Amino acid sequence: MRISKTQLKYIRSLSHKKAREAERRFTLEGWRALKEAIASSATMDLVAVLPRFLADPDYAKILRQLEERRIPVREISDAELRLVADTVHAQGVLAVVHRPEPIVSDERLNRASLVVALDAVADPGNVGSIVRSADWFGVDLVLLGKGSVELFNEKVIRSTVGSVFHVPVVSGVDLSSTLRRMKQGGFFVMGLSGDAKRAYTDVAGRARMVILLGSEGHGLSKEVRASADVIVQIPRFGKAESLNVSVACGIVLSHFRTKNR
Amino acid sequence: MRISKTQLKYIRSLSHKKAREAERRFTLEGWRALKEAIASSATMDLVAVLPRFLADPDYAKILRQLEERRIPVREISDAELRLVADTVHAQGVLAVVHRPEPIVSDERLNRASLVVALDAVADPGNVGSIVRSADWFGVDLVLLGKGSVELFNEKVIRSTVGSVFHVPVVSGVDLSSTLRRMKQGGFFVMGLSGDAKRAYTDVAGRARMVILLGSEGHGLSKEVRASADVIVQIPRFGKAESLNVSVACGIVLSHFRTKNR
Repeated sequence: MRISKTQLKYIRSLSHKKAREAERRFTLEGWRALKEAIASSATMDLVAVLPRFLADPDYAKILRQLEERRIPVREISDAELRLVADTVHAQGVLAVVHRPEPIVSDERLNRASLVVALDAVADPGNVGSIVRSADWFGVDLVLLGKGSVELFNEKVIRSTVGSVFHVPVVSGVDLSSTLRRMKQGGFFVMGLSGDAKRAYTDVAGRARMVILLGSEGHGLSKEVRASADVIVQIPRFGKAESLNVSVACGIVLSHFRTKNR
Repeated sequence: MRISKTQLKYIRSLSHKKAREAERRFTLEGWRALKEAIASSATMDLVAVLPRFLADPDYAKILRQLEERRIPVREISDAELRLVADTVHAQGVLAVVHRPEPIVSDERLNRASLVVALDAVADPGNVGSIVRSADWFGVDLVLLGKGSVELFNEKVIRSTVGSVFHVPVVSGVDLSSTLRRMKQGGFFVMGLSGDAKRAYTDVAGRARMVILLGSEGHGLSKEVRASADVIVQIPRFGKAESLNVSVACGIVLSHFRTKNR
């Protein structure tokens, strides 16, 4: 069945943050992300596909899974997809997905041991890449502090490559109060900053840790920085002024995961 | 003095790869990158600045340095800057810069100990971020294999945050033959791949190493992969299918730098 004008209009409206929030839905692009959404039993309203994939045996399995879950699959034309998709990377498929909306519950915190907290990280690619690394290294929870980019921004979702369905990501978190609560629960908060004296490699890993990272331009805000038990830096061997925040996050996660294996 | 129509037209032409190659120049955006260009004595034809910065004491030093080097500074309007700049992140300044064009000379190779080689890495943000990490970790040389994004793409240049002036980056490299030559010179080539059996942490660092990374979608090509002395992976603790290539690069560089300190 062909996608309707109303459905196209609705998908297009989801490119606006306000609509995504009011509708509690977002759009997902690409087959890899769709596969992860299905594997994670995400609720979907609709999947729109270019006709040439419907008869392609490579996609028969994923299309059958959609059918089994009674998720409507609609044909969309190239021109229509270009109109509603964020990028040329949609790879011929787009889905309307219900937002996972985890909260920072006591239960969730009690079960967590490794947490990443982002203070006003604004670049969609960086936040997406951090969620992906968090998923790779088995982080239990990602906290997006106020001032960070919205998780359901198309570019963030695309950069997570499906990891948004694996790691709980809580948005709009008041980091100062939440980190205080976590420290009472036994978490050790390690903040990263280029001006720190200590290297992260000189700090012992703990059973319960928060890795805290600041914005690309300004680093950690004064208030959030005060919540950290220790401020560390990544030793520099060359001349760059700083590292990309998602690279810095990956380096520190990798170190503590590998060390505590 | 105001920027001329001819100058604006010229800057605009540099948004095309062909023009950048024919002219051997590229455009640089933002004050941080400009500062690095000056510090590295890059040759510049012209710097275009929004009028409000010309009287701002915060920018007096950098403007004086431009004057001392007899680099013409021209006033540009907001509307004109929007027209010629790649993004809204130009921060009110744009420069026309001569391309540094290093080659893989024997002399350069003889002095190098840590090298990063990219096989068809296509995302501008990833390549820029890798050059930035290479600079941070004191890498001696970055090789951009054929099929990788062009270094002087505005998004690559912006993502390097000035590191393009610190680390020699050679473009259009035939990786198979160059790596063969380097191995004869004593380099140990470590390729990264998600399907590898060995962890990078289980391989000893060497005095002369090449870290070899493949494309975002397809990893290392068969031919280039065959040049590696060892293929390693980054151990996974969660569910993500892969890591971002610039994050993976940062993790491995950090490990071998810190280990061999």
